Amino acid sequence: MSKKPSGRGKPLIAVTPGEPGGIGPEIAAQLFARYRPARSLAVIVGAFPVMEPWFARYRARVEVIAPRVRRSAAIDVARAAAGILTSFREGKGHPRILLLDTGRRERYAVGRDSGGGGKHAGFALEVACALAAGGVFEGIVTGPLSKHALHLGGYPFSGHTEFLSRYFHAPDCQMMMVHRKLRVVPLTRHVPIRSVARALDTRRIVDGLRVVHDALVQDFGILRPRLAVAALNPHAGEGGVLGSEEARVIVPALRRVRALGIRVTGPAPGDALFQHVETGMFDAFITMYHDQGLIPFKMLSKRRGVNVTVGLPVVRSSVDHGVAYDIAGRGEASPESIEAAYRLAETLVRRRRGQER
Amino acid sequence: MSKKPSGRGKPLIAVTPGEPGGIGPEIAAQLFARYRPARSLAVIVGAFPVMEPWFARYRARVEVIAPRVRRSAAIDVARAAAGILTSFREGKGHPRILLLDTGRRERYAVGRDSGGGGKHAGFALEVACALAAGGVFEGIVTGPLSKHALHLGGYPFSGHTEFLSRYFHAPDCQMMMVHRKLRVVPLTRHVPIRSVARALDTRRIVDGLRVVHDALVQDFGILRPRLAVAALNPHAGEGGVLGSEEARVIVPALRRVRALGIRVTGPAPGDALFQHVETGMFDAFITMYHDQGLIPFKMLSKRRGVNVTVGLPVVRSSVDHGVAYDIAGRGEASPESIEAAYRLAETLVRRRRGQER
Repeated sequence: MSKKPSGRGKPLIAVTPGEPGGIGPEIAAQLFARYRPARSLAVIVGAFPVMEPWFARYRARVEVIAPRVRRSAAIDVARAAAGILTSFREGKGHPRILLLDTGRRERYAVGRDSGGGGKHAGFALEVACALAAGGVFEGIVTGPLSKHALHLGGYPFSGHTEFLSRYFHAPDCQMMMVHRKLRVVPLTRHVPIRSVARALDTRRIVDGLRVVHDALVQDFGILRPRLAVAALNPHAGEGGVLGSEEARVIVPALRRVRALGIRVTGPAPGDALFQHVETGMFDAFITMYHDQGLIPFKMLSKRRGVNVTVGLPVVRSSVDHGVAYDIAGRGEASPESIEAAYRLAETLVRRRRGQER
Repeated sequence: MSKKPSGRGKPLIAVTPGEPGGIGPEIAAQLFARYRPARSLAVIVGAFPVMEPWFARYRARVEVIAPRVRRSAAIDVARAAAGILTSFREGKGHPRILLLDTGRRERYAVGRDSGGGGKHAGFALEVACALAAGGVFEGIVTGPLSKHALHLGGYPFSGHTEFLSRYFHAPDCQMMMVHRKLRVVPLTRHVPIRSVARALDTRRIVDGLRVVHDALVQDFGILRPRLAVAALNPHAGEGGVLGSEEARVIVPALRRVRALGIRVTGPAPGDALFQHVETGMFDAFITMYHDQGLIPFKMLSKRRGVNVTVGLPVVRSSVDHGVAYDIAGRGEASPESIEAAYRLAETLVRRRRGQER
């Protein structure tokens, strides 16, 4: 699997701006025009011609690394860049921002999906993952993707989490939404409501809860996390009258998880559970489907949430928004979410290294 | 159907305390010990031996009406009480609280379900409905029921809304959760997640939206209400990849509703929709299932919500909590929710009469 990072020097964190026709390149340039991380080295992974106009516009001082490669596969770009990138780890003095030029030169459309855009985005992600698997990057911060553009560009994935899950052979990795002390994990994500009940089984819930628990300990520094688990059905099934999945699937899963020493409460009716958000009683809320977790999360995080993939060998965080084609290219995008994602990735990386409590 | 109320004098509002083994009788007595409505006449509908100890404990001054009946069917009690109740409408002077004694004397258990308790609760509801259908009561405020106790007592209903829907032949009446300017209506209520998609069809959505719209105009005094409708699936189905119900069922329903001149937005992803709660852009949020609406509602209402049934010939509001058997009989219950329910019913009744804007 992946090599352990050396743990010495500054951690390198990749930033992939995502779909070049969206707001990703702009927000990455904006962020690093005003923010130069002192405790990590930020490496934007993208194509020079995509990024350069935005660096110029926001006066971001960025050093470009353009590895010379004979073949232009992602793995070759990664191999050629690995040495020079690691040499930056020990860099003293003023913090620097790097751009690792992927060398992609496909044309793409601004403000809409294009195969070229999908190629840029998918390729940058491959490069970043290869360098993370090799222990060079300890974190990856991702901008927004377009699923459709990825498909057009020959990357048949439904999103980052699926891509990373396959790349790192981590089928049980989970999407955790984070805003301050609020953490929400939907155990099913992009599943129609019609199919949610079928998609849940005891093993999936057990594995999901273990991954969440371990991430809270390892990445978030919580010694004995308390998990709250939502029921699937209204009134938690009301003794079976409103659904049988609580008794058949969820309760057995929680019993197995408790036997592992994990502190877990539930299954509790969703509407009752989220009344506890402000009490701070729980370190994470685990829901059975997308809206059950994302409705309360987005109400509370007010667009400042960060999406973290837990259960991967590399730290990964992401913006909370989409490509925003409607304002792409106009200089109207806000880097608030990518900044929150970068800062959280930095904290998580340092905690994995044992440099932060 | 039901007679039009005369519109003269004070409106009579029934209060049914609900399951006598729960906290209902206590909170009703507490409320009217401290609150004597000036613009309506409150009539508690329940058995004297159930209510009397709580009136004594909280020093509530209540006048008892005990109609003499030969048969003890609910309709007979209602008929015998109608005349004397209407005579109170014109009453001047100090506001009074009435108890209409249902005459039930079955034994019941405190703190748990019993057939006797179910009989008390179901019978009182029948009496109140009969008097509402006859135009005597213009509103009904209900305390918490136990579904199981109702079944044991020979009332095979799953709750108030179902009971009232059948009694008043109003199959499309809806549960509206109200807290200040926030109004949330789940179009399916007590349906397992597995069956939600099947339970929705275009006609049901159209009829539900019409009922909500009409109630906002008639009962809430909103001239041209704006409705926001949640999608069923995550990301509103994302163009069909994450579910087809948006295109097949919801969009056609909204088209038909718009053709009626109703202002409606959607179907919008649930997590995006509820970010708009605080903007005040929408007069009601309509969701496709229970948790989708009740999670955000309960987070915002913090146990001060009121449950209103819209689409009935009578105004009906209810407490937002259950029987609370764990604290029943102890004098620890809070009348906050029943007070909010009564005050809202009074406002809605007066608006239907045209006495309030």
